[in-house]
Amino acid sequence: MVPQEPRYVAIAKRKQAELAAAIPDEWRLPADKIPAGMLSPAESISEGPKQYKPVRVIDIPRRCGLLTDKELIITENYDVRGLVSAMTTAKYTAEEVVRAFSKRAAIAHQLTRCLTEPLFDRALKRAKELDDHLRRTGKPVGPLHGLPISVKDTFWIKGVDSSIGLAAYAFQPAPENAPLVDLLHGLGAVIIAKTNVPQTLGCLDSANHLFGRTLNPLNRKLTAGGSSGGEGALLAMRGSMVGIGTDIGGSIRIPAMCQGIYGFKPSHGHVPYGGQQEGQIPGKGRAGIQAVAGPLARSVADLGAVLAEIVPRADLFGEDCIPGPTAMSHRCRRSLRVLDEVAQILRHTPGVKVVEITPPPEFAQCHILASKLMAVDGTNKMLDAIEEFGEPLIPWLTSWYRRHEPMPIGKVAALQAERSKIEKAMLKMWTSGSSHERCIDAIICPQAGHPVPELDKYGLVDYTSCFVLLDYPSGNVPVRAFAESDLQPGEEFKDPVLSKYDAKNRLLWDEKSIDRRVYLDSPLSVQVVTPKQRDYELFRAMEIIDRAVQGQKLASHPRL
Amino acid sequence: MVPQEPRYVAIAKRKQAELAAAIPDEWRLPADKIPAGMLSPAESISEGPKQYKPVRVIDIPRRCGLLTDKELIITENYDVRGLVSAMTTAKYTAEEVVRAFSKRAAIAHQLTRCLTEPLFDRALKRAKELDDHLRRTGKPVGPLHGLPISVKDTFWIKGVDSSIGLAAYAFQPAPENAPLVDLLHGLGAVIIAKTNVPQTLGCLDSANHLFGRTLNPLNRKLTAGGSSGGEGALLAMRGSMVGIGTDIGGSIRIPAMCQGIYGFKPSHGHVPYGGQQEGQIPGKGRAGIQAVAGPLARSVADLGAVLAEIVPRADLFGEDCIPGPTAMSHRCRRSLRVLDEVAQILRHTPGVKVVEITPPPEFAQCHILASKLMAVDGTNKMLDAIEEFGEPLIPWLTSWYRRHEPMPIGKVAALQAERSKIEKAMLKMWTSGSSHERCIDAIICPQAGHPVPELDKYGLVDYTSCFVLLDYPSGNVPVRAFAESDLQPGEEFKDPVLSKYDAKNRLLWDEKSIDRRVYLDSPLSVQVVTPKQRDYELFRAMEIIDRAVQGQKLASHPRL
Repeated sequence: MVPQEPRYVAIAKRKQAELAAAIPDEWRLPADKIPAGMLSPAESISEGPKQYKPVRVIDIPRRCGLLTDKELIITENYDVRGLVSAMTTAKYTAEEVVRAFSKRAAIAHQLTRCLTEPLFDRALKRAKELDDHLRRTGKPVGPLHGLPISVKDTFWIKGVDSSIGLAAYAFQPAPENAPLVDLLHGLGAVIIAKTNVPQTLGCLDSANHLFGRTLNPLNRKLTAGGSSGGEGALLAMRGSMVGIGTDIGGSIRIPAMCQGIYGFKPSHGHVPYGGQQEGQIPGKGRAGIQAVAGPLARSVADLGAVLAEIVPRADLFGEDCIPGPTAMSHRCRRSLRVLDEVAQILRHTPGVKVVEITPPPEFAQCHILASKLMAVDGTNKMLDAIEEFGEPLIPWLTSWYRRHEPMPIGKVAALQAERSKIEKAMLKMWTSGSSHERCIDAIICPQAGHPVPELDKYGLVDYTSCFVLLDYPSGNVPVRAFAESDLQPGEEFKDPVLSKYDAKNRLLWDEKSIDRRVYLDSPLSVQVVTPKQRDYELFRAMEIIDRAVQGQKLASHPRL
Repeated sequence: MVPQEPRYVAIAKRKQAELAAAIPDEWRLPADKIPAGMLSPAESISEGPKQYKPVRVIDIPRRCGLLTDKELIITENYDVRGLVSAMTTAKYTAEEVVRAFSKRAAIAHQLTRCLTEPLFDRALKRAKELDDHLRRTGKPVGPLHGLPISVKDTFWIKGVDSSIGLAAYAFQPAPENAPLVDLLHGLGAVIIAKTNVPQTLGCLDSANHLFGRTLNPLNRKLTAGGSSGGEGALLAMRGSMVGIGTDIGGSIRIPAMCQGIYGFKPSHGHVPYGGQQEGQIPGKGRAGIQAVAGPLARSVADLGAVLAEIVPRADLFGEDCIPGPTAMSHRCRRSLRVLDEVAQILRHTPGVKVVEITPPPEFAQCHILASKLMAVDGTNKMLDAIEEFGEPLIPWLTSWYRRHEPMPIGKVAALQAERSKIEKAMLKMWTSGSSHERCIDAIICPQAGHPVPELDKYGLVDYTSCFVLLDYPSGNVPVRAFAESDLQPGEEFKDPVLSKYDAKNRLLWDEKSIDRRVYLDSPLSVQVVTPKQRDYELFRAMEIIDRAVQGQKLASHPRL
């Protein structure tokens, strides 16, 4: 007897064929423009970590010859506000802009496997409607008129799959748009594609059996991060102006970090989250810990440009949203805590005061508590879906992902009580400890306890999950590339903030377990964090830090 | 053998003796000033409903002779801002003010049994400190300098019991202040007493075996409401300027309604809630449904005066709080939905547009869902405490309060998912349904499906619990007293908004089950509601409605 092929295989083939068919022939890269060693979707999972070489593909779109000069200008020379303005002033049509980005997204996909659902046809149709509207009325459809954007595969778009890379959810078109999709549509933005995610959405490598592994365009050997890893790669390749990801443990900030772009994890309630395929029992987040949606982009200004339009309207679209902060009313006293050279740069930035702070000891409990709250129901629904179609767990998951008993409600309540206790202790970090006067506006801390790891090696989200537990808005700011001079061991890590977890993080830096040269030229980032619901202050802090860092001549260090 | 006395009895006696001892002899009412039929604490529970007559005690403080003319002026002629200003301009000392209100609170207690922990001594000590500070520095301690306030028994005050009327929690002084107590203290407010609550905190009559039943000063035969019933009575008697209650099903708004005062249930996150004895397992609210803290007062202006100081500071004190709305930035388009004559009055108020709206059918599911979410853990901890000391359930609870199995987390998640669905449907009530443009600023609806019920007859919180489930801020605005002309049956109730529950509410109005004359002179109120987190808009709406109603000559109706 021939062993039967697992059920997922045929579905994966159909899905891959569908994806390929959505890319027009004239947007296909000639074989010689794709660096050798892409591997098939299946091999990308099993063989990738062993076989991938440190190949950089980020510049290929510019020199592959598929994009016209005009398309290169459209996709490379504008920020969000500039591009929208170029369309509303009829310098470009929305159709031209959407075509340029769709084409570039198609190229990006052929080099990084970042897409799940190309939506080029409907995007072009919508772009023409926008152009018609502008011609007819003289007015743009909305403040993001014509802006090409992308969304994580989880988000429902009516008539389109949200398979999240699982056979169990493939070929089940969404019944309606997610509220955020409706909101973006109403603003005039055009969704050109949905993007790849990891199996279970709970991994830090965006790899699954339907679409394969998303590759990091800066270095194939390093992870693209997850779970919004497709977004990260697409944005880094300039295949979209802004991407919408989601984050419960770091899933917006980690792909941003891995690909040297900017990511913004808002506080809960400012970007509509509903209408997604999460592979979880509905309502679980509300009893445990809630993920949030937020943007990835190539500049702080671009993050701000979309948030400024989404946040004030969010509570009219999302039942999970509250009125947004009225941006201009917030004070920003500009005392910022920073790391290493970023601190040094900021020390010389007018108006910024840098202080070193030590978080309260309770901070070290955040990660394990967040992990427990993510698993209140044992997350068995996800495993049901995986097993139903005979999908093997991807390597990242095999060692630890298994069924658990759902927690009794008394246990969940005890975890929530512990969370309140930590939150209370953390209040003191922002004040002088006793005075109840805020003396810290923002902190800068690592995104992770290591540089961008190799494939399947990103182990812990302890530096990012904590700020979901605490609902502190936080964002990724890329600083520069990893240089030869960074190879030196540096100071010994005596007093780890995050207790035993930091020890595990250090394995990715320990010469005994890793050749640090793998990190050469990879992006180095900092994480910026503000108090709960101080999202506008986060934006401002990221802006100040980014300007200071970018304005500085880092003579001895390569730029990204 | 003599049957042993249940353990709670001796504790109740000690607690009552302690309470009595905290009232100085010179503040005691002569026996002839207390209308006959007060009943003992024990009898107030068992015999009250049968024996109490419709006695009105609200005017006794004015004519009992215990309060000096100056004390009457202090306790009757000022609102919050006026009284604070009188202290900061040295017209009165804080000591004079705190003494006047403490004395009046003592009198109120002797007539309504509204207090649990009189804190007169420490309040006077604190008042002297405030006076010293003002004399020494020329500056008030804070914006509520010297303001006499009261808090529900649940709130921790260091060294003071939070027994919540249960023997199991008596004589266990709190280890620290609740964050809200710290906040109010820092503002200069002086807490003069803690106030009575129902057994389990889950009843609508504030009656328990430690302190007995709080009586409605407007009419002993009608309920004082609960669970912040002691606050309601104390405020109505002018024994405090502002009271802090809590609300999960209506516990701020219902006592306000029953006693003709104003109550404000904020959205979650604007008034620190932590540091209370709830008799529940910690963290339960966060997995299920969360109660909120908020003020009761005698005017909309007084609610606003304390909220304006609490809300902007809340997130520095309460780990459960978020930055408050920056009041002045909110627009208020002033289209208000109203009931009956209030609608008529508002129709003639400049700038107000009145429209009739029908809530989506999902609204009818709110009450039962809120009730389930309040009981995710089976609420057995409360019954453990009650049974430990042999306390019988009070009559209000006997027919239905029992142990339940804690819910599996999957069930809790399903309830939370249902809640999200209702929230989503409710979004449409505020907009035109499809346009995502807000067209309703505030709604006016009943507080209950009946007038203020007799003792132990307030059955359902279906008109109030819904707005905790939805996290819509909502407040009570008293309109006028129930008049002879209100006795006529009115229109038949054909189309109940809240399905089967409204039918039960109607029993309190049905001539077959009740003599409606019991309601004569009792307060009639409306409830005002705004969208989630639109707390400042609620305040404005209450102000507009209250001014319109109070400014109107309701010639045919008695005033409260």
